[in-house]
Amino acid sequence: MVEQPRVAVVGTGLIGGSILLRLHAVHPDVTGWDPDPRTRAEGRERGIDLPDELADAVRDRDLVFLAGPLPSLPETLLTVAKHSGEHCVVTDVGSTKGGVARFAVEHGLSGRFVPGHPMAGTERSGLTSADPTLFDGAAWVLCPAADGIVPFRMLVGLLVNVFAARVVPMSPTVHDSVVALSSHIPHLLAGSLAGAVSGSEIRDAVLGLAAGSFRDGTRVAGTPARRTADMLFQNREQVVRQLGQVSAFLDGLADALRRDDLDALVRHYRRAQGLRDALRDRDLRACRQEFPTDGDHVAELAYLLELGAAGGYLTGCRIEDGVVTYVGHRPATADPA
Amino acid sequence: MVEQPRVAVVGTGLIGGSILLRLHAVHPDVTGWDPDPRTRAEGRERGIDLPDELADAVRDRDLVFLAGPLPSLPETLLTVAKHSGEHCVVTDVGSTKGGVARFAVEHGLSGRFVPGHPMAGTERSGLTSADPTLFDGAAWVLCPAADGIVPFRMLVGLLVNVFAARVVPMSPTVHDSVVALSSHIPHLLAGSLAGAVSGSEIRDAVLGLAAGSFRDGTRVAGTPARRTADMLFQNREQVVRQLGQVSAFLDGLADALRRDDLDALVRHYRRAQGLRDALRDRDLRACRQEFPTDGDHVAELAYLLELGAAGGYLTGCRIEDGVVTYVGHRPATADPA
Repeated sequence: MVEQPRVAVVGTGLIGGSILLRLHAVHPDVTGWDPDPRTRAEGRERGIDLPDELADAVRDRDLVFLAGPLPSLPETLLTVAKHSGEHCVVTDVGSTKGGVARFAVEHGLSGRFVPGHPMAGTERSGLTSADPTLFDGAAWVLCPAADGIVPFRMLVGLLVNVFAARVVPMSPTVHDSVVALSSHIPHLLAGSLAGAVSGSEIRDAVLGLAAGSFRDGTRVAGTPARRTADMLFQNREQVVRQLGQVSAFLDGLADALRRDDLDALVRHYRRAQGLRDALRDRDLRACRQEFPTDGDHVAELAYLLELGAAGGYLTGCRIEDGVVTYVGHRPATADPA
Repeated sequence: MVEQPRVAVVGTGLIGGSILLRLHAVHPDVTGWDPDPRTRAEGRERGIDLPDELADAVRDRDLVFLAGPLPSLPETLLTVAKHSGEHCVVTDVGSTKGGVARFAVEHGLSGRFVPGHPMAGTERSGLTSADPTLFDGAAWVLCPAADGIVPFRMLVGLLVNVFAARVVPMSPTVHDSVVALSSHIPHLLAGSLAGAVSGSEIRDAVLGLAAGSFRDGTRVAGTPARRTADMLFQNREQVVRQLGQVSAFLDGLADALRRDDLDALVRHYRRAQGLRDALRDRDLRACRQEFPTDGDHVAELAYLLELGAAGGYLTGCRIEDGVVTYVGHRPATADPA
């Protein structure tokens, strides 16, 4: 484990730029790269080292964050792997994890590539909108693998200490089904509402009465269209599958309205309200867990994946005398059986 | 027109309480009433006059706001009309207007009842959550009628001057179709997402990764279930009708995902993003409009209803020398032909 890793950030838009600004604030030895020369110039004006060539930005680094557009990710991973040293850990911030994790395995990179996904962002874009505090308290998914447990542990420490993030360990598959519900379908619903109003005869009047519920309900439809489309497209299998549940609930609500069944409507809304109550009242308990740093990591991986699936997260990872100690937080109502 | 009307607020939950607090801040001669004795006691602790009997609260008033639960509205309107003087203007804050407007006509009250709907609120409830600044800059719909134009004008002045609201004049029918899209369907989508997650096998993990898009997309599902159900139920015809457009757009997005058609997905999202851009970039122009205070009010009503349908609003209403002058604001892109 490297005490103070030398980091590069490839792709410095909203997410990558926010990572870069935060890293630079705590340790100036960080490099960045972006395909857009104006973005590189903007970064240099902030005193950050952004070489013109990607290879120069990553050559002598211990850790590289990949934060470019989703479709470019596999190719960028190969380029970065080629131009960085064998010891260099690579992670990404893409919104789906199954595809890139498989790609890394197929290309023999799973030992140094840790799939990642910070659950933060806004509808804005570009380095101009970047914010070094974007990840404070945010959930940041990392996908640990048996052959990548050492870089995983290093990343947990960095994300917690530098970004004040809550690290959620998850398998790529579980991640993709969870974000379908927690992020992608919210984007689908926001797009449907905004899109329907854009074509409505009463569009102008609706804009005139748009209050909190409409603004909140359509906010992420303001995200650049290409970015949203790429995100949904990459996870289309899970999105379509989980959408079935949401559509079924919506059908239930609409049926209650059509059948003049106020009681059924109230029952449905009690369930919805209960979920919001659960979100507000989440009560997590901290506990430490120790594992030997060597061995097959089977128990360590099982602990990590179970913690994430239960809605928990990590806020610490310390290695000492052949023992790795995690600080985990687990919902009080989701204790393991 | 009464210079400083003596006002009563009947039903002092979140909305009524916020109205009451604001009125009391500018003019202490205001009364309130709520069926819950604890709420009345809470109001009295704030120095506000809340008699135990509804009749005592409204007897000598010039204006009464009805702000109780939707199903109680017609009966409360009759009670208030009975216990207040013939000159007393009554308005409500309910989220649908067709039903109560018809009820007022049927009971000979359209000359002094002005249907109203402030587009403000939160998922919280009760006088404890009330906020005298809740309506600052908010759209507040009023439905003018030919035989109710005098109380309408008085209310415009009060809402603008006391509440800093933007008054949107609309017919009850137009209002109900517009709020189906601007408010009720957002509640339906939020309920569907929250309800589906509440029954999902991966509920705990979804709560663990809930970030901005999920929190915003489900926020109004935290509203008390009965209140949301009442609201949707009262406007069920329009909600079901407008839902067709939103479902069609959602089907289009889902089809694009199923057909692996990224281009179609981007095209759909460009329309959705365009609507958010339009909401952000709304550019309204102010203009004055004068009408004689007497006569048949046909031109005045036509002006008012067209302004609201075009997405505009009023920020002023002054009466002098037999002339009523409105200050209207109209979207620059929606000039009348």
